Amino acid sequence: MAKITIIGAGVMGSTITFPACDNGHDVHLIGTLYDREIIERLRKDNFHIALKKYLPDGISYYQTEDTEEILKGSDLIVAGISSFGVEWFLNDIIKLIPSGIPVLLVTKGLKSLGNGEVCSFVDYFTDACDKRIEFCAIGGPCISYELAARHNTFIGICGYNNETLQKIKSLLNTSYYHISTTTDVGGLELASAIKNIYALAVAMSTGVAEAAEGIGCRPHYNAQSGLFAQSIREMKIIIKSFGGSSDNLVYGVSDLYITVESGRNREVGVLLGRGHTIDEVLEKLKGMTLESTSAVKALSEAIYEKHKKGEFDLESVPLFMHVNELMSGKKTVDIPWDKFEGCYNYD
Amino acid sequence: MAKITIIGAGVMGSTITFPACDNGHDVHLIGTLYDREIIERLRKDNFHIALKKYLPDGISYYQTEDTEEILKGSDLIVAGISSFGVEWFLNDIIKLIPSGIPVLLVTKGLKSLGNGEVCSFVDYFTDACDKRIEFCAIGGPCISYELAARHNTFIGICGYNNETLQKIKSLLNTSYYHISTTTDVGGLELASAIKNIYALAVAMSTGVAEAAEGIGCRPHYNAQSGLFAQSIREMKIIIKSFGGSSDNLVYGVSDLYITVESGRNREVGVLLGRGHTIDEVLEKLKGMTLESTSAVKALSEAIYEKHKKGEFDLESVPLFMHVNELMSGKKTVDIPWDKFEGCYNYD
Repeated sequence: MAKITIIGAGVMGSTITFPACDNGHDVHLIGTLYDREIIERLRKDNFHIALKKYLPDGISYYQTEDTEEILKGSDLIVAGISSFGVEWFLNDIIKLIPSGIPVLLVTKGLKSLGNGEVCSFVDYFTDACDKRIEFCAIGGPCISYELAARHNTFIGICGYNNETLQKIKSLLNTSYYHISTTTDVGGLELASAIKNIYALAVAMSTGVAEAAEGIGCRPHYNAQSGLFAQSIREMKIIIKSFGGSSDNLVYGVSDLYITVESGRNREVGVLLGRGHTIDEVLEKLKGMTLESTSAVKALSEAIYEKHKKGEFDLESVPLFMHVNELMSGKKTVDIPWDKFEGCYNYD
Repeated sequence: MAKITIIGAGVMGSTITFPACDNGHDVHLIGTLYDREIIERLRKDNFHIALKKYLPDGISYYQTEDTEEILKGSDLIVAGISSFGVEWFLNDIIKLIPSGIPVLLVTKGLKSLGNGEVCSFVDYFTDACDKRIEFCAIGGPCISYELAARHNTFIGICGYNNETLQKIKSLLNTSYYHISTTTDVGGLELASAIKNIYALAVAMSTGVAEAAEGIGCRPHYNAQSGLFAQSIREMKIIIKSFGGSSDNLVYGVSDLYITVESGRNREVGVLLGRGHTIDEVLEKLKGMTLESTSAVKALSEAIYEKHKKGEFDLESVPLFMHVNELMSGKKTVDIPWDKFEGCYNYD
């Protein structure tokens, strides 16, 4: 039995309690400042008010004040934070983590370093603590409530030390939570981040069809799968360009697959596809947090910077360029199909 | 204006009349023995009784007896035959095709050569006519009725001569029919063929979910995308092993994407997923022609042959092996998730 401590009682972090508890571990869940209510209710009867589900029995729950104390003696720390909690984690939490305990991030996204540089959160945190702590991360397709229902889920974890990855796998792998491991951090993390952009792009085809034939019409599968194909091409180009191996594209592609089907990026893509500007879309979806807009911004800055240095051909990613245009201005959708045809040579 | 002659008035062949006519070509459609009724009705009022749609004006229609005469002087011949018409095409038609006219195949599938060898139809026909005729083929995601509705469609054509590919592209590329070209015949054709097997495999997740929660339940997206991920891995391994480049995997993956959503392989996969044996499934779907069963058979023979020679590791394709088991015996579904985890090293 190992001690597994999860920081952040949001949906994704809390869901990791299922494989952790099913493997018989001693599981501790610590809320952030924003999770006070969630923790209060969990303490009462194990019911998670955001996940709308009872967590397994036997978990110990804590408010954020207890973080330092509880982290001690853990065999694994899971950082269940969203990309919006990254700076808080960096400034307030990392210093509380004892050396020698590996940290598994569930955060997906890219950190913009300014100057057009982006990096994975694994690298960002590793650098921030001068390599004192070993960070790993989860990638690949996983809808939280499905994992919480113990449905078969197939994901990848990445990190630089294979021994640590195997240890984490041995702690969390179950009969329904199937974990592959890879040391290609750049490839897995970049794929996880950019798939949000392309999920939005693929979903545009639904909106375009609806603009022509009415909302709720039969999907245009040819167009949707055409955009899916072009997305794979461009994801591969971008990952290669940023030093990742395309071997792990499989996680990004399957994650793209699941993200097109559901979620916020889909909603934005469909609305853009219907002909709305991004301002109109954001007005309609008021209050929704949208990780892909910041990912597009960070990535496009990085790509333009590479382009200036002669290291990136903007014409190799016409779909990305179009989404970027949509996200940054008053333009409306006009999918550049003819530009895709010439992309073969970039494969 | 070029003369384009299509052999076979089935759904897929007939659909090519849309881009061909929209580009202003002189289009001739010749039915096979099985298309007599289709041609008769088309001659009357352009209505295609299988596609349930009017074809464009200006097409000339012929019964099979006229084939030899009509082929003369064509700039491009499109072979709109299913994999079940292959031997007929080989024995009765190829000899009628004048030298120097390129032939574009819409047929997807693999030809089993016995002895565990498989090859693409491009290679099969090229060899059969001693390279007298240049064969090319279409791959990638395309649902016929969507192309016939002039919806955006993004496909690839493959052949060994880039000049011919560019010529075909210039004849058929339109504002909605977007054609990429590749000389990686093995990669594109193999991907097109094996995606049927994996579409069946991915669709099993729907049946498994229904067996647990009732028919029509919400899809289990995690499982579905997990099988999608594993399918991509295995398709890559198989294509590499048979000499194709994984660069063209993009067509197979997007074709897999579309095939999971609709079609016969999906139906079979769902029924297998619900726990039926293949015999029960075929009984339920009586009368349905199923190209994937023959593809599985041909491919599994070829894979076992390679395995015997020490050229293929059967453990690298656990999902294929499971489908093969389901297709060949009385076994029922039991997705080997734990075997996928170990597959990373084969990426």
